[in-house]
Amino acid sequence: MENQKINFSLRTDLAYDSVKSYESSVINGLIETKEVIKGVEITKHIVKEQAREILNKAPGIYYTIDINEQNYHDHNISKDIENIVAGVLLELIESRNLKGKKALVVGLGNANITPDAIGPYVVDNIVVTRHLDLNDELHSGYSVVSAISPGVMGTTGIETYDIIEAVRNKINIDYIIVVDALCSSSIARVNKTIQITDTGIQPGSGVGNKRKEISFNTMRIPVFAVGIPTVVDAVTIASNTLDYVIKYLNLEYNNMVPSVNKLSPNGIGIEYDNVEEPNSDVKEHFLGQIGLLNQEELKVLFQDVLTPNGYNLMVTSKDIDAEVEDLSKIVAWGINKALHENFMEEI
Amino acid sequence: MENQKINFSLRTDLAYDSVKSYESSVINGLIETKEVIKGVEITKHIVKEQAREILNKAPGIYYTIDINEQNYHDHNISKDIENIVAGVLLELIESRNLKGKKALVVGLGNANITPDAIGPYVVDNIVVTRHLDLNDELHSGYSVVSAISPGVMGTTGIETYDIIEAVRNKINIDYIIVVDALCSSSIARVNKTIQITDTGIQPGSGVGNKRKEISFNTMRIPVFAVGIPTVVDAVTIASNTLDYVIKYLNLEYNNMVPSVNKLSPNGIGIEYDNVEEPNSDVKEHFLGQIGLLNQEELKVLFQDVLTPNGYNLMVTSKDIDAEVEDLSKIVAWGINKALHENFMEEI
Amino acid sequence: MENQKINFSLRTDLAYDSVKSYESSVINGLIETKEVIKGVEITKHIVKEQAREILNKAPGIYYTIDINEQNYHDHNISKDIENIVAGVLLELIESRNLKGKKALVVGLGNANITPDAIGPYVVDNIVVTRHLDLNDELHSGYSVVSAISPGVMGTTGIETYDIIEAVRNKINIDYIIVVDALCSSSIARVNKTIQITDTGIQPGSGVGNKRKEISFNTMRIPVFAVGIPTVVDAVTIASNTLDYVIKYLNLEYNNMVPSVNKLSPNGIGIEYDNVEEPNSDVKEHFLGQIGLLNQEELKVLFQDVLTPNGYNLMVTSKDIDAEVEDLSKIVAWGINKALHENFMEEI
Amino acid sequence: MENQKINFSLRTDLAYDSVKSYESSVINGLIETKEVIKGVEITKHIVKEQAREILNKAPGIYYTIDINEQNYHDHNISKDIENIVAGVLLELIESRNLKGKKALVVGLGNANITPDAIGPYVVDNIVVTRHLDLNDELHSGYSVVSAISPGVMGTTGIETYDIIEAVRNKINIDYIIVVDALCSSSIARVNKTIQITDTGIQPGSGVGNKRKEISFNTMRIPVFAVGIPTVVDAVTIASNTLDYVIKYLNLEYNNMVPSVNKLSPNGIGIEYDNVEEPNSDVKEHFLGQIGLLNQEELKVLFQDVLTPNGYNLMVTSKDIDAEVEDLSKIVAWGINKALHENFMEEI
Repeated sequence: MENQKINFSLRTDLAYDSVKSYESSVINGLIETKEVIKGVEITKHIVKEQAREILNKAPGIYYTIDINEQNYHDHNISKDIENIVAGVLLELIESRNLKGKKALVVGLGNANITPDAIGPYVVDNIVVTRHLDLNDELHSGYSVVSAISPGVMGTTGIETYDIIEAVRNKINIDYIIVVDALCSSSIARVNKTIQITDTGIQPGSGVGNKRKEISFNTMRIPVFAVGIPTVVDAVTIASNTLDYVIKYLNLEYNNMVPSVNKLSPNGIGIEYDNVEEPNSDVKEHFLGQIGLLNQEELKVLFQDVLTPNGYNLMVTSKDIDAEVEDLSKIVAWGINKALHENFMEEI
Repeated sequence: MENQKINFSLRTDLAYDSVKSYESSVINGLIETKEVIKGVEITKHIVKEQAREILNKAPGIYYTIDINEQNYHDHNISKDIENIVAGVLLELIESRNLKGKKALVVGLGNANITPDAIGPYVVDNIVVTRHLDLNDELHSGYSVVSAISPGVMGTTGIETYDIIEAVRNKINIDYIIVVDALCSSSIARVNKTIQITDTGIQPGSGVGNKRKEISFNTMRIPVFAVGIPTVVDAVTIASNTLDYVIKYLNLEYNNMVPSVNKLSPNGIGIEYDNVEEPNSDVKEHFLGQIGLLNQEELKVLFQDVLTPNGYNLMVTSKDIDAEVEDLSKIVAWGINKALHENFMEEI
Repeated sequence: MENQKINFSLRTDLAYDSVKSYESSVINGLIETKEVIKGVEITKHIVKEQAREILNKAPGIYYTIDINEQNYHDHNISKDIENIVAGVLLELIESRNLKGKKALVVGLGNANITPDAIGPYVVDNIVVTRHLDLNDELHSGYSVVSAISPGVMGTTGIETYDIIEAVRNKINIDYIIVVDALCSSSIARVNKTIQITDTGIQPGSGVGNKRKEISFNTMRIPVFAVGIPTVVDAVTIASNTLDYVIKYLNLEYNNMVPSVNKLSPNGIGIEYDNVEEPNSDVKEHFLGQIGLLNQEELKVLFQDVLTPNGYNLMVTSKDIDAEVEDLSKIVAWGINKALHENFMEEI
Repeated sequence: MENQKINFSLRTDLAYDSVKSYESSVINGLIETKEVIKGVEITKHIVKEQAREILNKAPGIYYTIDINEQNYHDHNISKDIENIVAGVLLELIESRNLKGKKALVVGLGNANITPDAIGPYVVDNIVVTRHLDLNDELHSGYSVVSAISPGVMGTTGIETYDIIEAVRNKINIDYIIVVDALCSSSIARVNKTIQITDTGIQPGSGVGNKRKEISFNTMRIPVFAVGIPTVVDAVTIASNTLDYVIKYLNLEYNNMVPSVNKLSPNGIGIEYDNVEEPNSDVKEHFLGQIGLLNQEELKVLFQDVLTPNGYNLMVTSKDIDAEVEDLSKIVAWGINKALHENFMEEI
């Protein structure tokens, strides 16, 4: 493993998070709609050109499927999420009139590093048909699908983009679905969120992210991307925690912390994302000078403190094995149902 | 996996950390010695009865092998660490006159959850001989060794302690070596520290840790324990970070931050553990009321904030697969060398 | 892996095969009944005391579930087989009035050698409850179940029987279900047959099989055994083949080979098991002196020829990974349904 | 897994076996040389154009490394074999003046089917450098190496050849090393032989093998192939056995069977390959009409008998997991040493 380098979309925040920090209503060129199906929250963001800069996001459609506390290890719940993934993907596919057209599924990441293996695992579960004769009855309801796991530059020595482009030019396909593991910008999302977008894979802003853009601009065919945040760094954990702490203390200060709180089981605590920021006096009182920094400044400070020592660990859930295995099957079958009509009927 | 529960020795801090927060010299009944071999730091703590309470540690000998920045994925470096593990174990074994006696190696933890799999993986690599005839020449230099992986209560329905005791009573053994994954109390130690002690496995203080003591007291034969911290919780990451931040800001405030710092690669940053605590004025200035809490109070506060939401993730390194595999081999061969004289010659 | 020895029930032929070679009607003390459910053939043999010798089988009830050409990798078919396994097990459990009583599931074999891993894999998928409080509503419909994978002597140094007995004496259980990989006595059965019996695990006749009996006689509580043949040796493959060849040639000689045969896809060939033995003249004509040996003599000859060179390979299917994974889930859920009433309702 | 098809080079017999059945001296255009290093037998065959037809082999150089009874799970023995592989490869590489030139290593096969996973496992252990700057001191002694595992058509839907050609055209390389699992034509060779040739991968003769040629002819740069037989079919096992049986009986008939034989441990039996064929009278006496068939005719007969029923299982060793893992590392490091000068020094 010594010369394997992990390939997370570092700093590739979920669109959801870029938006979160704004009153979306006030952003010109952003349309947000929410829907909840069987406890799973689906947020759709349409980012227009004029919102590109403020959100630092390419214009396009972004879906954020938030599994929340649903136990996706349960067979029936996993089927529900599969169908949600399939529905969202199909909406994007149909919006480009690509239904039933030739698809290539690309699983990015390193199959030997579990939190980075979502892409390859998904490809292992894709029903490929390009090599079969789909004219016979047996195959009615199947579309032409192929799939590859190009590996990562650290283990191939080849820029992943180059392998994908080489295959794209070699075989006849109409669109690409890229699946990848992401770096989360929030503790709460790790292995609990599926983002689907029609903007492909964008080069991350910031350090350490050399990956090339994989999108319509570069591939000249539509590229949809399915991303799952499987890792988070210590800086994010620490800054999230401080953000929650200040809100918690402010609530407590105003006797607004539900007394049940400390004893309550998982998932019944305070929804910090929905708690408004305390004013700066409160922040300074509880957190001094640091309380006056915004999340972005806080992260930069933590970077400076942790990174030089190699203390800014990229971490993942201790249950990563089971979580990646099950999420991969959910995404794979969501894709299978969106691509092959005969599976879709099951929805 | 739904009914698999992970079996980390929650809250079982490394002795090293219990000691760290004191000027060891001033603790009555604690003797500390340090040694560095090929970049690996070996700290030995002898905890006497009178130090039990202040350290909250059972009296006994604790070795902390700190791999630091040594790349143990390298074959030669791994051999060096193997030999250090073997040497430390042998010192404990010989101190009880157990050299060459009948040993049982017990691998605690869940083989299907990588960060909890150190124990079972080690057992997979132990050279067992109890079922062989060791009288023939072929086996000269081998001791009588057996090994089991009892699994975890979540997957067996049986208290792990009961399985070990049942086996211990069934077969004839002279001592036990228990191997287990630990919960780290510091970001910096995850998958970089090996603790070896003659006190066995002690019931953790605090919540969520129901495990029974596995030691001379309960097994009536010596029990040595080898522990490796493979996970850390969000609370620890956040409180560690704040500790480092306040020290960093204080240094910066006094213009003592090496200017190279921000640009320097891993491992050349500030050694925060060796930086003294700023005074309370500085802490309050930078961190307000929170700055006035000690690490213990800080952790309790973070617990209250994160736990009810299930945000106090137990996390691990993204490279956990390779790290657990290689650390398991190092520990297993360290044990093999300590138990079987003919391997030991290789040292 | 060097000191891991595989633990197949060598020579433990399926009861079905012991019987096959006889006109069952003519055996005194053997009752055979057959049933076919959704293409799966279920044969039940009741072996009485007076048939013990001729069949070399302990008296008891033997079920042989023959999956034949059913594709058990298909979700729906696997559910059908699960239910058949559950039904058969439940029949045996109820015949001893053990329904809802305390069960221990034991997975024999080496988890690191795929064809020997059926037992441990099954245990990984058993819903254990012994450590839970089953009195609350949440757990109505669950029985008290525990499960262990004792490993194999080659990796533990401990006789597997001793570990099981130690646990059986330590905890309070009413019966045991042992799951194990078997050595097949026919090419056609590898990974396609599930045998369930109430006789437990009997010591194999013949060489190389030192395992102790695990049954009511030794455990003093009922022991049911679930066995799946996952390996076959070269001797068996060769002698099976000669048996088929002579039958084929005899049919061809009498122009009775369906002309479609050579071109037909898998599974539509001649059912050699149902073709009667040619007479000895025919055999000698085609196979000379060797044609005059019966299957047993033939196997002994092949042993003498292949074994000294280590050419009598114990082999398995090239698709062993997927087959063992899926068969393990089928057996595990068959057991879960038989043990826990609330799952059973799904049947 | 349902739509994964295994990708063995069916019928791609080892050159060694094609040659075996002839007195090599009498073949015009075949030069054979043998060498034994540390118990490992290295046979070199130079096949000239005029021998192509009789051997049904493309002209070129074929090395057959026969590990025999050497235990390659032992660290030191594995190093020896690594060095032999490196030496052979380097001889071929230097014969084309390619030493230090840009290499692409291609791992054929399905990583999820262990006996077919040699190629992908080897790639996992190749030291790739193409993405690094090799001009700095740190990298002196490294050549430009890249590596890919294109997967199999059953899981990608894309002809493997097309992926390789696409990558070959996209990046700048001077030669290719293809690693693949083979189908063995002898029981004795499974997981014990490494074949290295400069002819690349040739389309297998006969049924079921649709793979395209991967060689200088198609890639326009030198293609070396490393193949390891990991599977064997029932037909081969049965026909090998009959061949051995007839020789055994003939020896016994002439009282030439070493009496120790039956009791002797593995590897001390009769070396049937070196025993001459009995005459046809003997064959007919013992094996009747079947005794009069040559190996080729015998195999065709067995095919007709077993294939229609799906009884011609493609089987592998029960220890396949450990064998493929260790053989992959041996081949990978043999390649690493041949490609990167600084590793080679270790030889």
